[in-house]
This record gives sequence, C-alpha cells and structure tokens, in this order.
Amino acid sequence: MKHIVSSGEFERPWLDRLFRLAQGMQARRGKPGEVLIGKLMVTLFYEASTRTRMSFEAAMRYLGGMVSSTENAGQFSSAIKGETLEDSIRVVSGDCDVIVIRHPMTGAAARASLVSRVPIINAGDGVGEHPTQALLDVYTLLAERRLLDRLSEPNVLDGLTVTMFGDLKNGRTVHSLARLLRSYGRVHLNFVSPHALRLPGGLLHELSDNGVGVFETDHLSDVLAATNVLYVTRVQKERFDDPKEYEIVKSSYRIDLDALRGAKDDLVIMHPLPRVDEIAPTVDALSNAAYFRQADNGLPVRMALLQMIFQNRS
Amino acid sequence: MKHIVSSGEFERPWLDRLFRLAQGMQARRGKPGEVLIGKLMVTLFYEASTRTRMSFEAAMRYLGGMVSSTENAGQFSSAIKGETLEDSIRVVSGDCDVIVIRHPMTGAAARASLVSRVPIINAGDGVGEHPTQALLDVYTLLAERRLLDRLSEPNVLDGLTVTMFGDLKNGRTVHSLARLLRSYGRVHLNFVSPHALRLPGGLLHELSDNGVGVFETDHLSDVLAATNVLYVTRVQKERFDDPKEYEIVKSSYRIDLDALRGAKDDLVIMHPLPRVDEIAPTVDALSNAAYFRQADNGLPVRMALLQMIFQNRS
Amino acid sequence: MKHIVSSGEFERPWLDRLFRLAQGMQARRGKPGEVLIGKLMVTLFYEASTRTRMSFEAAMRYLGGMVSSTENAGQFSSAIKGETLEDSIRVVSGDCDVIVIRHPMTGAAARASLVSRVPIINAGDGVGEHPTQALLDVYTLLAERRLLDRLSEPNVLDGLTVTMFGDLKNGRTVHSLARLLRSYGRVHLNFVSPHALRLPGGLLHELSDNGVGVFETDHLSDVLAATNVLYVTRVQKERFDDPKEYEIVKSSYRIDLDALRGAKDDLVIMHPLPRVDEIAPTVDALSNAAYFRQADNGLPVRMALLQMIFQNRS
Repeated sequence: MKHIVSSGEFERPWLDRLFRLAQGMQARRGKPGEVLIGKLMVTLFYEASTRTRMSFEAAMRYLGGMVSSTENAGQFSSAIKGETLEDSIRVVSGDCDVIVIRHPMTGAAARASLVSRVPIINAGDGVGEHPTQALLDVYTLLAERRLLDRLSEPNVLDGLTVTMFGDLKNGRTVHSLARLLRSYGRVHLNFVSPHALRLPGGLLHELSDNGVGVFETDHLSDVLAATNVLYVTRVQKERFDDPKEYEIVKSSYRIDLDALRGAKDDLVIMHPLPRVDEIAPTVDALSNAAYFRQADNGLPVRMALLQMIFQNRS
Repeated sequence: MKHIVSSGEFERPWLDRLFRLAQGMQARRGKPGEVLIGKLMVTLFYEASTRTRMSFEAAMRYLGGMVSSTENAGQFSSAIKGETLEDSIRVVSGDCDVIVIRHPMTGAAARASLVSRVPIINAGDGVGEHPTQALLDVYTLLAERRLLDRLSEPNVLDGLTVTMFGDLKNGRTVHSLARLLRSYGRVHLNFVSPHALRLPGGLLHELSDNGVGVFETDHLSDVLAATNVLYVTRVQKERFDDPKEYEIVKSSYRIDLDALRGAKDDLVIMHPLPRVDEIAPTVDALSNAAYFRQADNGLPVRMALLQMIFQNRS
Repeated sequence: MKHIVSSGEFERPWLDRLFRLAQGMQARRGKPGEVLIGKLMVTLFYEASTRTRMSFEAAMRYLGGMVSSTENAGQFSSAIKGETLEDSIRVVSGDCDVIVIRHPMTGAAARASLVSRVPIINAGDGVGEHPTQALLDVYTLLAERRLLDRLSEPNVLDGLTVTMFGDLKNGRTVHSLARLLRSYGRVHLNFVSPHALRLPGGLLHELSDNGVGVFETDHLSDVLAATNVLYVTRVQKERFDDPKEYEIVKSSYRIDLDALRGAKDDLVIMHPLPRVDEIAPTVDALSNAAYFRQADNGLPVRMALLQMIFQNRS
C-alpha cells in the first residue's frame, strides 16, 4: 500500500509516471465512467486549510469518487475526549478507502500511516511536510519551462537557475522543492532572504554536498538577471520579534514591476499562495506570472496521484 | 457566461423560462441520468446560512452534480492570512464548475463575478442582494395564485394587492420582491410597518414612479380586507435602540387567527423564514399559510436555475 | 414511514432481517448500481460527533446515495435566530430523503419525527437514545460469538453471561444493550461499577422482572471467570465531584493484561469507543479485543438500516 507522507520518498520514475498522468487530467474533469467510482475519501483536517481540502475533494470527485469531509477534526468529540490519533485513524480507516490528513503536529501523517488500513495522504503536518504542494511545484516548473514532454531525459533541468525568495527558514515548501530539483539534473539555487529568515544551514550543506550550486544573498538584484525561475514566499509578521524590523523587510521583500527590471523575458514567477503584499497586483498581468497556473495545477496533480494510489491497490 | 448576482438583472422572458423549467423539477428529484453529471459546485459561505446552503446543495445533487462545501470560509486560512477575495475566487474557480457565495459584505458577489472563471451565484451579500430568494418568492406567489400556466400573459398579476408586513427597512427580500412584481403587471403594494422600520423613501418613489400603486400604514387592519398576498417579515430586536419599543412592536406586528379576521378566504400568507413569534403556530394549519410551501419552492427554482446556467455554457 | 428514534422499538423479526442484510454489506461497499442512487441524506448535527456522522455518511454513499452535511447545526443561522426545531425539520425535510439528527436535548429526535416528511434517524439525543449504537453492539456480540447464522433460533443467547463495566449510570449505550439482549434468550448480566456510577435501580428491577439474571459488584474479579462478553465503558472525570475519588476509580476500573488473568479464552471484549485509559493498549493485540471490529460493524449495520428504510418506502 502506498502512503504519501513525505516528499523525500519520491523517486524520478514514479514522478515521471505521475506527471505524465497529470497532463491528461484536465481533459478528464467530469467525464463519466471514471476510475474511482465507489471509492470514498475522508478528509480529516485537524486545522483549517479550506483550499487544500477543496483541491483534494475536487480531484476525488472529478474522478468519480466520493468524499466525506471534516473541517474541524481537532474539535472531533473523540479527540477532545482524549482519544489517540492512532485510535481515530484505526476507526476512520474502516469506513473509507483513502484518508487525507492535515494536522498541526509534525509527524502526524507518518503516525497515521502506521495504523491505517487505507492509504494516508499527508496534506501538511505542522512544520513538517506538505508533499503534494512539492509535487505541484515541480510539475508547474516543468510545465512553465515546457519540459513535460522531455521527462525521459534524466537531466532535463541541467543548467537551470532557480531563485528562492522570502522566508526560507520556515517554508517547508521551499525545502521540499530544493531537494526534489536534484532529481532533475544539475541546477543552481539562489536563496534571497532577510538574514533572520535564511535557509537552515543543514539543508544548505546537504544541497551543496549533493552537487547543487548554491548562493545566498540579501538582495534579489544580485541574482535576478541570471534567474530562470523565481519562487516567492510570504514573509509572515509573526516570525519577527520586532515589528519595525518586519516593516523594513516587508517593503524590501516585495516583487513589483520595478523589482523585476533586468529579469529575463521568460522568467517564471511562482508562489504557493495565498499571497498578501509580497507580489504586487500589477505583476499578475505579466505572462511571467505563473502562480495562478501553479494553483490550477494542484487539481491534475492530485487527480493523477489518486489514480496511481488506487491503481497500485487493485 | 451567466452570473446570478442581482435580482435587478432578471427580465421577464428569462423568468418565464426559469419558472416553466422549475415546474417539472420536483418530479425529476433523484432521477438518474441527469444533466449536471460531472459538474462540481463549490459553496463558499463566509457566514453561516445552513438552510440556504443545503437548498443549493440539494438542487445540485438532485440534478446529478457534485458539491464541495465550506461552512466557514471566513475562517478560511487564506482569508485570515490576508488574501483578497479576488485571489480566493481566482484559485477556487479553477477547481470547480460553479461557485455559490455568501458573504457579509455588500457587493462581494459582484466582485467575485469579475474574476471568476466559472459562474457565480450570489446566495446573499450583506444588506445587498439575495436573488434566489427573490426568485422563489415570485415563483411561490404565482404558484399560490395558480398563475404558473399563464406565464405567456404579460400582465398576469394586474390588479393584485400585495401587503408587505413587518421590517420593511432592512428586508432585502421585500425590496427585491417589490421591484420584481412590476414585471408582471399593475399591482398595488401596501406597506405595513412600525414607523422606524418603514420602506426606504427612495424605493417607495421608484415604485410609484413606475406605475405601482403604493400605500403606507402602521395598521394591518387598514388594508387586510383588500389584500391578496400578505408577505410577513421578522422584526428583529437588534434593530431597536429601546428594548421597550421592541416589545410594543413585537406584540402588534404579529399574525394570529385574530389578526386575520376579515381577510379574504383565498389570502396567501408568505414568509421567507425562519419565523420566530411573528406568525402564531395556530396559523400553520390554515390552507392560506403558504410559507412552508414557499420554502419547498427553493429546491425546484434552484434546480431550474442551475440547469439554465449550464445549458447556457454548453 | 419508518423513523429510527428509540431502541425500545426494535423487535426481533425486524432485527433479524437487519442483521441478515448487514452481513452482505461489507462486500457491497462501492459496487456501482446501488439501491440508494438519487436519494439524499441530510446529517443535521446540533453537536459534534464526527465519527458517527462519518459512519452514516459512508453508509449512505457506499449504497450510491448522496449526503449534505452540517457539523454545526446548533450555529445554524435559523436556530440562533430563534426558530423552533419543528420549523427547521419542516423546511429541511422538503429538501432531502432522510435526516440523521444529533441533538443535545433528550427527545429531540422524537419531536423531529412528528413533523418530518422524511424518515428521521436518531444519532444520539442527549442522555436519551442512540439506537444505531445499540444495533451495532448487538450485531457485534452476535458476530463475535459466531451466532449470525443462527438468527432463526429464538433463544440464541440462552446462557450467555455479559458483564457491563465502568460508568453504568450515565451510559445510554449500556442501558439500550441490556434491554435488547432480552430478545435473544435468557442471559445473565453482571454490572461492575464504582458505587456512585451504578446502573439505575429502575432498570435493574425492570431487567430482573423480565427474567434476566442480574448481579451487581464493585470488583471485576468477582465475575470475570464466568464472563463471556465484557462490555467496557469510559468513566468520565466530569461525573465526579471529588477529583481524588476519580483518580482512585480510574486506576481500578481499567482493563489491562493483569486484570484479564483468569478470563475465558474466548472472552469477547467490547467498548463503544473512544477509549482513553480504561483499556490498556497492550490489550489491543489480543484476539479477544473486539472493539475495533465493533466500530467497523457500524458501517454494514447502518448500510442495512438505510436499505430497509428505503425499501419500506418504495
């Protein structure tokens, strides 16, 4: 049985199959006679993440499957009464065919996968993993660079320069993506962040030890001209002890038309969304702005993932 | 693409088509092979309105469609993080085929319709509009007067006297209904309310300038004998600064068997529900009491609306 | 029309039909062409009980039906505005084919059944009834004793000793089960509880007057050796005025491997779940531990119940 708990488990052949499948999925939305008829997904969300939940639910339903959802599993009577996560999963996994779990506690999805009788999909566990976000990020990067037809080439991203921008310390999204890109060739990664929000040193060394070119700076202008893909993340106020420091950072870690002067014509701008002030609305109109397409890619990638999970089981 | 944002957009030919379609809908509940198979509705409710949500969901499902719902979109992680309504709609509209939105802010549905890639249905936006309530009100009035077979007659309501009763100041329901009735001929409208809760003067003049006979009074007894349709609304405590004034109003703006003495035998009593004390339970048993049939009409009217929206698209 | 409001209404022939139907249900999960296609269930939960809700929803969906759910019907706009339960049910029952109601107030389901136009299923009403829990408990007991093939024998449980353990005062589960067992022959019931949480005297006499052998004690060891089925319930802290008393009770009303020494090899251990400390995790590995299978039986029993409800109607 295939659980989807950590993006560290994804290997290139599996990713290639997934992304090939995903390409045909938009066309299959809502076609009758689908593969997941009679299968039931339970979305067990111990913290709210309406958009992620809806993306999973849409993926299941567009393939003909069914969904039973809870927005507030944390207020689950049984959890409140003191039931362990393991007992909850043991019971719920008897009433469905796949569980999508979101939990504030790192490692929750892994614990769930040890006792579940049906596949567990991790939809985010605290500061831990959010593997389907990582999948849709890689898929989007390949799609925007028009490389989805060349998945048979082992080093299809050789020579690509990706710049990660914003809060690189807390962003599990950024960490997963940085690691996954290694499977696609020799890439160069720039990390642009306020000093307090730098990429964890351990990850930086891990990447560089594995042949990834890395470079850190405070200033986007240092690396923009050479950048093929700019991955923007939100700098959150609550990460700063000093509100004044946040205000300074906020105004300088912001992408607008000015900040993009000197960028390549075919620069790809990504963002996991929601965005607040870190990308100006004027950027939305650029063909470079890939972030809404990126959000859209969640659906076909999750549809493909569900199909693969159930194919493996039958 | 057809959005349903304001009852001001409804024109007679469109209404006639909708109501003809609605008449056959109760019979089609739950018949397989329906027209919306494979279509997904998202109900995005930024404030609770369980009954309206359930009516839309039932309409979608009885036509073979699917629903992904959120009861607390206001606690949406992305909204809380500061995402704009526009960004939320951009993203969600990539994962579904129609969005039903309820929002505390007037104009929210119109804003949503500007960026959505799928039809937006307004299920109430603050003190603004609630167009499907207006539709089911007109449908009920026509049904109760046995006029649904005569939709080809332009002035089918000529000579009808409708009395609006209760809080006429804040009731968006009353405002929409008063405006819509004009499309059906020369009607006479009585407005019975406490002084503080009168119909807005602008609307009164608009109606009278458009050939509607209007009359205002504090006393139902002034107009009851001539009334064909009595539309009751709830007087809410929170509208009064002085609780004592509310208590006085509450006891006089109440329909019971006594208050109905002198009414026509075929008087139609409507109410958008929920009702609290403004209609005594003893009235429920009268054949005149149409308010539960009115609530029931929400389903076929919304089924018809959904079918028309998707017919327009294909 | 068949409402499911109280376990007191269940008679042996009806129970036999239900349990025969339930046996085939696990195999029918997710098979297409099911009997409830086009039927819509509304789950109206005025208090959270996610697991019960999900079990009902899974049952409906695996039979091809549809579900519209509310987790917070208590925060229902209409209930908050002061609408009666009766009005809510009148309206909602126009938009669906069956209502599953959970309510904190004893008698709520019975009240709902008086005005509903569709079958009402009681999913727990305060300290009142939770009839489908009673059904799955009896089903589990029969299944674990391998007696489901012998439902044609009137006294199939003759000579069985069942020991109820824990909080016997407040447990509606225990009360319903004790009463229902009488339909299956002459059973002997032991009641093991702290003094403050004894079975209500009235029920004890009712059982003994109806030919049930009964015995009360504070100590499991008094009755364990003769016990065929041990039904454990949770002792809740909030039932005690004195926290110290709770701590004493808690440690002695706990089942672990030690406490089970001297039990029959084929002892069946049941628990309605969630469990907290009253059964040690080490017990889970025993083949005697039936409580997760018991939870699993909720699905086929509720599937069978739904099928019988709709068969009766067509």
